[in-house]
Amino acid sequence: MEQTEVLHPKLKDITLEQVLKALGDPVRISAIKQLLAMKGEEKVCGTFDYSITKATFSHHLKILREAGLIRFRDEGTRRFVSLRLQDIKKRFPGLMEMLEKDL
Amino acid sequence: MEQTEVLHPKLKDITLEQVLKALGDPVRISAIKQLLAMKGEEKVCGTFDYSITKATFSHHLKILREAGLIRFRDEGTRRFVSLRLQDIKKRFPGLMEMLEKDL
Repeated sequence: MEQTEVLHPKLKDITLEQVLKALGDPVRISAIKQLLAMKGEEKVCGTFDYSITKATFSHHLKILREAGLIRFRDEGTRRFVSLRLQDIKKRFPGLMEMLEKDL
Repeated sequence: MEQTEVLHPKLKDITLEQVLKALGDPVRISAIKQLLAMKGEEKVCGTFDYSITKATFSHHLKILREAGLIRFRDEGTRRFVSLRLQDIKKRFPGLMEMLEKDL
């Protein structure tokens, strides 16, 4: 089994509470908005715009991943990050639209 | 000026980030759902259902109030709590509907 498969919660295990908690942080909401601007395309981990250390930013991405909002895909030494747009839209209709309006 | 007036942020000062952060907690999301079930009516502070101390619960209500989600109205020794339903619906369309679906 690939490592990336165990890292991502299944759709049914994603809770609104954890999603809202994950989103309630300026760095994490910024990361989600940068991914929303990609319109579903993957973004290379190093290309995010942030003004904190890389380690701290990685920690924020981990919280978003554990909440079920984003997906990691590792290829060699590069990590690709994408929004679980369809999953989130299915699980919590209106949430992503709300963030898009706030872009 | 009444004390209750200074306690509540103006509509324009309510941020999505703070609202999401406030909602990302099991006690607070439960309180909001109990208020949603009141359909806009006020709820007496002591009638909420919670399994923590009163002081801790009050602290959670304070966070919800500061985020702009709820309103306090004190009358004698009783505190009435209500959801700022119209304000939230105006500021973040879809958010309360999402919580209602998750009731």
